[in-house]
Amino acid sequence: MNDPAAFTREAIARLRTEVPGKAIVAASGGIDSTAAALLTERALGDRARAVFVDTGLLREGEVARVGALFRESGVRYEVVSAADRFLDALAGVTDPEEKRRRIGAQFIGLFEEEARRFGADRLVQGTIAPDWIESGGELRSTIKTHHNVGGVPKGTQLVLVEPLRDLYKDEVRTLARHLGIPQPERQPFPGPGLAVRVDGPVTADRVRRARVANAIVEEEVERAVAEKKMPCPWQYFAVLLGTRTVGVTGDNRVHGEAVSVRIVDSVDAMTATAASPPRSVLATIAERITRELSGEVVRVLYDITDKPPATIEWE
Amino acid sequence: MNDPAAFTREAIARLRTEVPGKAIVAASGGIDSTAAALLTERALGDRARAVFVDTGLLREGEVARVGALFRESGVRYEVVSAADRFLDALAGVTDPEEKRRRIGAQFIGLFEEEARRFGADRLVQGTIAPDWIESGGELRSTIKTHHNVGGVPKGTQLVLVEPLRDLYKDEVRTLARHLGIPQPERQPFPGPGLAVRVDGPVTADRVRRARVANAIVEEEVERAVAEKKMPCPWQYFAVLLGTRTVGVTGDNRVHGEAVSVRIVDSVDAMTATAASPPRSVLATIAERITRELSGEVVRVLYDITDKPPATIEWE
Repeated sequence: MNDPAAFTREAIARLRTEVPGKAIVAASGGIDSTAAALLTERALGDRARAVFVDTGLLREGEVARVGALFRESGVRYEVVSAADRFLDALAGVTDPEEKRRRIGAQFIGLFEEEARRFGADRLVQGTIAPDWIESGGELRSTIKTHHNVGGVPKGTQLVLVEPLRDLYKDEVRTLARHLGIPQPERQPFPGPGLAVRVDGPVTADRVRRARVANAIVEEEVERAVAEKKMPCPWQYFAVLLGTRTVGVTGDNRVHGEAVSVRIVDSVDAMTATAASPPRSVLATIAERITRELSGEVVRVLYDITDKPPATIEWE
Repeated sequence: MNDPAAFTREAIARLRTEVPGKAIVAASGGIDSTAAALLTERALGDRARAVFVDTGLLREGEVARVGALFRESGVRYEVVSAADRFLDALAGVTDPEEKRRRIGAQFIGLFEEEARRFGADRLVQGTIAPDWIESGGELRSTIKTHHNVGGVPKGTQLVLVEPLRDLYKDEVRTLARHLGIPQPERQPFPGPGLAVRVDGPVTADRVRRARVANAIVEEEVERAVAEKKMPCPWQYFAVLLGTRTVGVTGDNRVHGEAVSVRIVDSVDAMTATAASPPRSVLATIAERITRELSGEVVRVLYDITDKPPATIEWE
């Protein structure tokens, strides 16, 4: 793509051809799907509807943040609140791949219901070239494959439309600038959300713990970056581990959960280095997590593995 | 205890009264039980036998190290090889307290068998005052309680004899010097051995992984201390976590285990601070563990929690 204006014209024309009736757009709040939603709306107007699913597995403040992004970008959108549904689907599941399959199935089910209610037979997605070309290597592409692409069950009535499928990430950024989509510095967040940051069983309590721990890691890393104590990492987050450990309260031994903190430097997520934040930043993170989740989380670990041999995400 | 020579004379006299026949001594290679073994041998001569149990859950090189200590101290000893027996007893057990109970039961069973073979009706232990006075706070005292003291089942024929039960640690050190027992700088090692450094199921493979990881942590910390890169910590070890994670080999995602590395500074183990080793030391530890256990361990975490709120040991 050399000319975003030309690409926009052609994409709009193609969308009008590919969508004779109505379409819903799977909008995650990421730059790809936001660009796809805006193009679709320009092409189809009222015949398009962007659907954002609140899975209950989102980061703290994510629904508000994505809503603001859509409003600033001029995307009309609808929020589907489906936290109970996702938690029910994940009950008792510990296998990471099975978690992804169930989340993918829920997404598709929800999009089908929304399409039916709206009278749409097309599902627009923000799939880009690396989602097709990369595979297996890193979680992010696998995730997109799972719940945006590969997750479409055989036999669904929805026809997939992918206006960005030939673009690379830097081309999407150019396009987004052209379309007037704000691009705040946002670190990557996995499609299945906090479900893959909750190792072991996914329950409302455990998702809440992972959400609190993630918010603390984000706050403290962003504070340290703002105070120039460390360079801005590629990604930083917390994982609630699927095993228990022992702590001390007063004179008593207490059982509790453990959290792993991951902060990595990377250029393209294909390889990554465990970051070296100042000891004081890690100490504050450990202190806040065990205090704000007192009686629940008693131990905090810092992931010191590069990629390879570890992935960036835990599972 | 003001005078170790006087204490030694009185302890020997008391042992001769308390053991009319034969006694075996539970010898772990620690300073307490080594001092108890030496006193008992001086009191009873051939009527005493020190028994060292190779549980299969010991650190790399531990059997050789303890053997050398006994020989230098002049303690006659016998090694009971019981690795299979301990692994069998631990098969399928994941609860840490249940692991301790089963290990304690194996110890007692072994000591009873050894006593029977030797014709002894007394079991001498190196219990010291803090083993009785502290309780619940930290693992080390609980452990001793479990498999040295509290682990004696009701109905056993063995009568416990505890020649050091009124001494504190510094008094035992004075006594050991007087008795000519070498006291190399040795960090504390839990009584149940690597079983409590293997979170989750204890299998031969998982014990081997924990042993390799522990040896790497010991080597690299000791090297860094020798090179004056960091002060000598109170304790440093690795734990094989009871949950799995994902790694990358070439283009493939692979599942594997995770190891937590714990290095703490402390004065008395009642409180402790997560140490701050140089980043290069942690990087080397992570790199060696994932390379020397390639295909088995894909991720290494560094425990950044103080005590409290976490304990020193994982479980």
